[in-house]
Amino acid sequence: MDTATPVNATIRQHPERAASAEAGDFLAAGTVAHVGFQVDGQPYVIPFSYQYDSSAPDRLYLHGGHSSHTLRALAAGAAVCVTVTMVDGLVYSRTALNHSMNYRSVVCFGRAQPIEDPEQKQAVFARMIERYFPGRTAGEHYAPATEAQLRATALLAVTIESMTAKARRGAPTGPLDGEPEALGTCGVVPL
Amino acid sequence: MDTATPVNATIRQHPERAASAEAGDFLAAGTVAHVGFQVDGQPYVIPFSYQYDSSAPDRLYLHGGHSSHTLRALAAGAAVCVTVTMVDGLVYSRTALNHSMNYRSVVCFGRAQPIEDPEQKQAVFARMIERYFPGRTAGEHYAPATEAQLRATALLAVTIESMTAKARRGAPTGPLDGEPEALGTCGVVPL
Repeated sequence: MDTATPVNATIRQHPERAASAEAGDFLAAGTVAHVGFQVDGQPYVIPFSYQYDSSAPDRLYLHGGHSSHTLRALAAGAAVCVTVTMVDGLVYSRTALNHSMNYRSVVCFGRAQPIEDPEQKQAVFARMIERYFPGRTAGEHYAPATEAQLRATALLAVTIESMTAKARRGAPTGPLDGEPEALGTCGVVPL
Repeated sequence: MDTATPVNATIRQHPERAASAEAGDFLAAGTVAHVGFQVDGQPYVIPFSYQYDSSAPDRLYLHGGHSSHTLRALAAGAAVCVTVTMVDGLVYSRTALNHSMNYRSVVCFGRAQPIEDPEQKQAVFARMIERYFPGRTAGEHYAPATEAQLRATALLAVTIESMTAKARRGAPTGPLDGEPEALGTCGVVPL
């Protein structure tokens, strides 16, 4: 993959929830990335904080200790799936199987490479802190990482080769008020 | 695995965050399960609602359409990793690399089997609705699933063979108020 526009994979379940135009918005808004990879046939899904910047939409960043099982597997070239999900509401319906969630999610497929350059690492961490805490600035609100801290921290860039985004929004499905079979209640609990 | 007490896997990163005694509490409290598996060497991580009941602590339930890529792979015997994460706060420190999150997470490893019995499916869905919406009851607040709806919905039970739980709680690390190098600010933004 050598373009800046990831292609979109196929959505089979609830194709009406496809939200591919919003994939970058979801990555920019997310808090936790669930990072999936496999080692010796065993899948792992590990939660990480992450960095994503819409000016480089084919890339996201993960960091941690050099001994991290996840980062070591990814740095060794393992295929990776990074999923970011935000739950916006719990949806209750008048019928059991129409209970649902309102959510936004993006599933990214790619590969990772380590970033070794200390200046580049420093810059990614500063932008990441700014993403989680808008306005928070190195030198004013916190001390930037020292060289030793940068060396002690592994940073990987995941190149996104394809991704899919989905969202469910709005009201429950199922019988509506006034319909004869409209037993019980329905609505959305915002989260 | 034929006991009701899943064994715990090894925690390498931040072993001080180990919270294995709380794994069941975290599963009972979670909203989204990130379900990881691999097909033809490609890892996938897909968000699902789920059911977990502390009276059967070695099991969790996933459901969806019969054509679901995830459910089909799991029903065919793929090893699965199911991770549930709750983010409780964003932690800001006086030093860049001590920025963190307060979270609770549990990573479960296992295998899934389909559940075909309509009565068992109905019961799992009723308990699942009750977990997401405490007090919500079939026949009073909503209509139970019809036989046709039950047939149209796949339900899998994941047997948890091992799991690890971690939590970060409390204040930031890094320089404290009054220390000479205590540049800037620190604290926790609750979520």
